[in-house]
Amino acid sequence: MTDRPKTPTLDRVTLPADLKRLSDRELRLLADELRAETISAVSVTGGHLGAGLGVVELTVALHAVFDTPRDKIIWDVGHQCYPHKILTGRRDRIRTLRMKDGLSGFTKRSESAFDPFGAAHSSTSISAALGFAAARDLGGDPGDAVAVIGDGSMSAGMAYEAMNNAGHLKKRLFVVLNDNEMSIAPPVGAMSAYLSRLYAGAPFQELKAAAKGAVSLLPEPFQEGARRAKEMLKSMTVGGTLFEELGFSYIGPLDGHDLDQLLPVLRTARVRATGPVLIHVITQKGKGYAPAEGARDKGHATGKFDVLTGVQAKAASNAPSYTKVFAQSLIAEAERDPAIVAVTAAMPDGTGLNLFAERFPKRCFDVGIAEQHAVTFSAGMAAGGMKPFCALYSTFLQRGYDQVVHDVAIQRLPVRFAIDRAGLVGADGATHAGAFDVAFLANLPGFVVMAAADEAELVHMVATAAAHDDGPIAFRFPRGDGVGVEMPARGVPLEIGRGRMIRQGARVALLSFGTRLSEVLVAAEALAARGISPTVADARFAKPLDRALILQLARDHEALITIEEGAVGGFGSHVAQLLADEGVFDRGLKYRSMVLPDTFIDQASPEAMYAVAGMNAPQIEAKVLEVLGVAVVGLRGAS
Amino acid sequence: MTDRPKTPTLDRVTLPADLKRLSDRELRLLADELRAETISAVSVTGGHLGAGLGVVELTVALHAVFDTPRDKIIWDVGHQCYPHKILTGRRDRIRTLRMKDGLSGFTKRSESAFDPFGAAHSSTSISAALGFAAARDLGGDPGDAVAVIGDGSMSAGMAYEAMNNAGHLKKRLFVVLNDNEMSIAPPVGAMSAYLSRLYAGAPFQELKAAAKGAVSLLPEPFQEGARRAKEMLKSMTVGGTLFEELGFSYIGPLDGHDLDQLLPVLRTARVRATGPVLIHVITQKGKGYAPAEGARDKGHATGKFDVLTGVQAKAASNAPSYTKVFAQSLIAEAERDPAIVAVTAAMPDGTGLNLFAERFPKRCFDVGIAEQHAVTFSAGMAAGGMKPFCALYSTFLQRGYDQVVHDVAIQRLPVRFAIDRAGLVGADGATHAGAFDVAFLANLPGFVVMAAADEAELVHMVATAAAHDDGPIAFRFPRGDGVGVEMPARGVPLEIGRGRMIRQGARVALLSFGTRLSEVLVAAEALAARGISPTVADARFAKPLDRALILQLARDHEALITIEEGAVGGFGSHVAQLLADEGVFDRGLKYRSMVLPDTFIDQASPEAMYAVAGMNAPQIEAKVLEVLGVAVVGLRGAS
Repeated sequence: MTDRPKTPTLDRVTLPADLKRLSDRELRLLADELRAETISAVSVTGGHLGAGLGVVELTVALHAVFDTPRDKIIWDVGHQCYPHKILTGRRDRIRTLRMKDGLSGFTKRSESAFDPFGAAHSSTSISAALGFAAARDLGGDPGDAVAVIGDGSMSAGMAYEAMNNAGHLKKRLFVVLNDNEMSIAPPVGAMSAYLSRLYAGAPFQELKAAAKGAVSLLPEPFQEGARRAKEMLKSMTVGGTLFEELGFSYIGPLDGHDLDQLLPVLRTARVRATGPVLIHVITQKGKGYAPAEGARDKGHATGKFDVLTGVQAKAASNAPSYTKVFAQSLIAEAERDPAIVAVTAAMPDGTGLNLFAERFPKRCFDVGIAEQHAVTFSAGMAAGGMKPFCALYSTFLQRGYDQVVHDVAIQRLPVRFAIDRAGLVGADGATHAGAFDVAFLANLPGFVVMAAADEAELVHMVATAAAHDDGPIAFRFPRGDGVGVEMPARGVPLEIGRGRMIRQGARVALLSFGTRLSEVLVAAEALAARGISPTVADARFAKPLDRALILQLARDHEALITIEEGAVGGFGSHVAQLLADEGVFDRGLKYRSMVLPDTFIDQASPEAMYAVAGMNAPQIEAKVLEVLGVAVVGLRGAS
Repeated sequence: MTDRPKTPTLDRVTLPADLKRLSDRELRLLADELRAETISAVSVTGGHLGAGLGVVELTVALHAVFDTPRDKIIWDVGHQCYPHKILTGRRDRIRTLRMKDGLSGFTKRSESAFDPFGAAHSSTSISAALGFAAARDLGGDPGDAVAVIGDGSMSAGMAYEAMNNAGHLKKRLFVVLNDNEMSIAPPVGAMSAYLSRLYAGAPFQELKAAAKGAVSLLPEPFQEGARRAKEMLKSMTVGGTLFEELGFSYIGPLDGHDLDQLLPVLRTARVRATGPVLIHVITQKGKGYAPAEGARDKGHATGKFDVLTGVQAKAASNAPSYTKVFAQSLIAEAERDPAIVAVTAAMPDGTGLNLFAERFPKRCFDVGIAEQHAVTFSAGMAAGGMKPFCALYSTFLQRGYDQVVHDVAIQRLPVRFAIDRAGLVGADGATHAGAFDVAFLANLPGFVVMAAADEAELVHMVATAAAHDDGPIAFRFPRGDGVGVEMPARGVPLEIGRGRMIRQGARVALLSFGTRLSEVLVAAEALAARGISPTVADARFAKPLDRALILQLARDHEALITIEEGAVGGFGSHVAQLLADEGVFDRGLKYRSMVLPDTFIDQASPEAMYAVAGMNAPQIEAKVLEVLGVAVVGLRGAS
């Protein structure tokens, strides 16, 4: 455990109201201490470090100037909120970040009144803030709404939709554009280039002088000089035309690490704003912590680390991550097939496509945080004769759902969806769970939907997708490392709609779809020790179903239990539909479908989350015993 | 039947290649005839008239200048494609538009090589075109990609995502912005205001002169003069900064009804473009047909009509439309509760919220074609203490799915979703079917999901949603008119999760979710005449299920059959999960779930589409007889 930093000023702050008693000089001290405390906390918990360090001064300035929680600060994505949590009554729990029963790694309404709108997916903040502003003007909750959004998040269409609507409604609204030229990966897109041009010609020194001049113009409570200050600030802007065309007043760019700029500008804006205002702030991700500043990802996400050296503690693993297996398999396929291209939505590292891009830079497209476009752009490339792999996390594929239905499925275009982070994901919690993709894909006509049971299966599924040219195909796989199975020399396409028998037994058949298979096999061993030897099969396909296999399992067993890392409506529901259609239930079958429970599961380790979900080996064992009506004696840890 | 117009020039055109043989003067004649033929065809079929009339000259110009189908013209939404279909080999079937086994009312890949990318939902065209351009540059299909997109469609974030990516990739690409200040309703949003400013200061007369000047500079094949012409064209632009900031070359605005402007500009752009080009064209929806020009919606969608008078043939109905019942019920609730607000995404007429807006202009928000924002904006208003009703078509709610999960469901915010066009919709076909909403909503923790069985039920469900403050709630209802039941004086909130018995019978229970109930009752009567009197119940709720009702139906009957206007994974799947969990299948139950089939169903009347789906009364009757093992003799029209 690293020593706690000395934080005499921060120790005087429990809630944002305490900031009102601090001088600007003390606020600067506070910011330094807040930075140290943030680094110290994340060194213990791991988590998103770089984003928080980039907004330390902005966090102090916003809470010093605005009246939270009456005024609503809405942090886009929310992974930069650790300093905000420290200032808003949660410092005593800050070293439980992202842990079971601890603080969420994102803003969360149920956690604090200072989190008026939770986040975790990007680009929602302006819409939410506009909603608060509209509610306020109709007699709802009073106070200002302040969205703080990164330049990467501005590539998402949703942010544009909200700006477009805000510029139209003309309601008083603050959008702080936190421009660090870095979302997770370096940002892409024309908007990013535009933002760079905005401040390329404006040295901070001049801005600083201008802002300081503004300070001297501001009497307490600065209403008097505000008009002149505003004009001065306006004259110091070097661009912002694009935002002004969309109906926003533009202020900036400001040095986001300089409270001498932030405080007077925010104070003036708060007093004077009548409509929507965009405040363009330049920050540095990882600011003030050398190991983060020097890292390629600017300390975006980190494990626990040593504060002095920045060295992270890494858990040893005997198996490669699913993400890496996907990337390497795709590269291998692409070596053989020049039509293969890959698409990521601002997650080249998270999806492993950074490796693909190194090998095939012209065949890899990072479209920015823009899942809607990612899907239809992939569909366009498929229509143009290519073989696109659209690599998205399950939870983010939800952003492109209509495009999956409308542009891919209805047109039966062979887009390959590589769905990472399927199932429960651990520390990122409910907002990142991949719970719904099987349900929302498997009922689309013409879709093929697969789940890998282990990392070797994933290799074959990449090959299957590459070979499948008759319509869309998706394969899902979890976060984390594989189970350590032997890896095939190369992927071999699977027969579409054909599962595999894993273990022949009697009385009960366990039909797994996805990586619960290893837990199923543990449960099967435990059951065998009790004299019940289950049959185990890997469905591989939720669509098309292996009808022959499923009907045979139903025919040959007293009970059939499906298990999948997804919500009801997916694999098990399709199996039930088949069994019903075929009249299997007419004559009786002990059928059960183990799915994720009807609740959003808070962050913990994936194992602990699956325990909550009732889907680990002991719980599978217990389910079998219960279904077979076997008296349960001495069962380990079953719920 | 109206007389066919005289079309001597059009009669010489079978395919776009034929346009290459026509002089510019003949192309002008062709445009006039194409307009007359479009009006004549739609007078017979009904359909989207105004959009097509607005792009007659543009259609002629694009096909005259570009080399289709090698070059790909991608019509955004696609409802303006009737003139395009006439010019691309489909004139002989143009009077089958939107009919069963006829031409689709949208572009469709399976219909013609001249439809390289089908559409029907808005704002997909730039993404698709960029996909074609990227594929081409990697050795895929050759040719140019041309997206034609309306100003209304530009309010969708997806279009911005695509522009942002296109400006970054810098690939040769054409985007024709068809600016008619009118998508379906008058457009809203800051972008729309921006576009208006762009051409407010540029009288067409000057532009025309400039473009004519450009013509005179262009020798055949105009490569020589093109550079000077391009410079001249560039100097005539009056704005476009916003697009230029996003990396596009901007040309315009042009008079989109003047071939003397369109032809030279397109020819020059085609020769000279190296990167992405935006061509801003001003058109008039409904152009050239007085009844359309004079209509409030500019002839957006019409029934069959008399060409001379424009008078539409309207089918008589004894019942109000579900849409109108929803709107009137919501107004009634809003009279009593000032916290109720309403949100539409550019569909005030389609959702009935035009009526709400008339009564409560400040409490109704049309956010433009922006479903992602619509959902989160609603969530923000809910967090701010209001009671938002977010009114969307089922198929368009897919656009906001992630926001439903992430911003509404996870935060348990009481957003009310009024889901119109649930189930099969008729002439708009597969792209507009509301098939998936129950499946993708009912597995979200904390959601309440209802379906109205008739228009009186809808009144109560609006009241139920208004009263429900503990998390999100959705209610779905179909396109078209109600069944003519007696209407309640006012809505009374339903008990959450409680269905209703409709008819007590024996042997078989039919459990309906939604408006198939009337078909179920017809089937029940027919079955009763055969000596089988079914029990019939209306589930009302897919979530939470009426467990007691369902288990009782299962206990008291030999067979239980659910029916819903949706795909597998929805109501029936939740019922099956309950029955499995409760061990009902252990002892045998003839359970069936009637859902939409695993296919996209082409346009026809809703009744005909439900016949294809196997969900009309005779087919329900047949299903019961089959399940009960009754010999089928003389069954009417069952599949």
